[in-house]
Amino acid sequence: MSGGATGMKTYFNGGTAGEWAVKRITTICGTGLATATHLSVEDDETPAPHAWTLIGVRSNQRYTTRNEAGALLARQAPLGRPEAACAALIPIRKTPLWWELAQDERRAVFEERSRHTSIGMEYLPQVARRLYHCRDLGGPFDFLTWFEFAPEHEVAFDDMLVRLRASEEWTYVDREVDIRLVRTL
Amino acid sequence: MSGGATGMKTYFNGGTAGEWAVKRITTICGTGLATATHLSVEDDETPAPHAWTLIGVRSNQRYTTRNEAGALLARQAPLGRPEAACAALIPIRKTPLWWELAQDERRAVFEERSRHTSIGMEYLPQVARRLYHCRDLGGPFDFLTWFEFAPEHEVAFDDMLVRLRASEEWTYVDREVDIRLVRTL
Repeated sequence: MSGGATGMKTYFNGGTAGEWAVKRITTICGTGLATATHLSVEDDETPAPHAWTLIGVRSNQRYTTRNEAGALLARQAPLGRPEAACAALIPIRKTPLWWELAQDERRAVFEERSRHTSIGMEYLPQVARRLYHCRDLGGPFDFLTWFEFAPEHEVAFDDMLVRLRASEEWTYVDREVDIRLVRTL
Repeated sequence: MSGGATGMKTYFNGGTAGEWAVKRITTICGTGLATATHLSVEDDETPAPHAWTLIGVRSNQRYTTRNEAGALLARQAPLGRPEAACAALIPIRKTPLWWELAQDERRAVFEERSRHTSIGMEYLPQVARRLYHCRDLGGPFDFLTWFEFAPEHEVAFDDMLVRLRASEEWTYVDREVDIRLVRTL
């Protein structure tokens, strides 16, 4: 997959071409996204007609402590594993109320009360993950999270999402779309 | 001053026109900025020729706790006070080592060890301040901080900068330019 370097923009283009075939696009809350049969992931803006383009940037971690980062690093798998033929792109926007919380309040909701990192850790190394930020870019979402996993782990992946979406943190999510993909190359 | 709304870009244009006259541009570390006699602050990109344009976005706070935010709010002054005829724009870039630190490590350097917020608080309400983020925008700096104060408080403002620049946090700063301005309108 393209779109790696920290500080560089990554373009997720939904349309009729790309290395990922769209299995389904599900609107979890808020406004959905237009239909697309394929997704391409690019390091640069491409002039081809797209149904939509979501732009994100890899950035520094905002809540993860050094201990948590170490635990994640020890367990996580890289993107691009040959067996990880499935992917999900989940764009999320949080409410103004979330962003008005102070850093310690957001951290407390994120981990101490919602156990976001702890829950995600249970699904490592089967589910590989990369977070892209887009709030400061002014786009329609605040984050784009990219997940890769083998077909036999999609049930576990769905289980993880059910748990996260039931958390206090998700009461601050007002737009979420779940795009499921299968590798075509 | 323009450039207010959260999530909107603000354009700081250095050149020969603008509501602020440049008193001096001092390179504190790293590469400097080209000479300019005036600075304009705009909500939109303007086609006029500029010596340089720095773009930032207001965003959520990254380190401030609720208690600190409350104390700042109780003491701080707004921008645009008639007596605040002086301003400073200080663009800063931090090192890759800083950005590789985990959130708890950055917080500890920022406040527990460098007392960034506590030092700034001592200069309220005389020095008004607004932070713009630009790291995720991919520009040449990570932050642009805008300060406004009355001429008689410039000595105190300089004193604050001496203290901050002597802190552990500043060992992670590898580019900093100090632009001093006087209101012309």
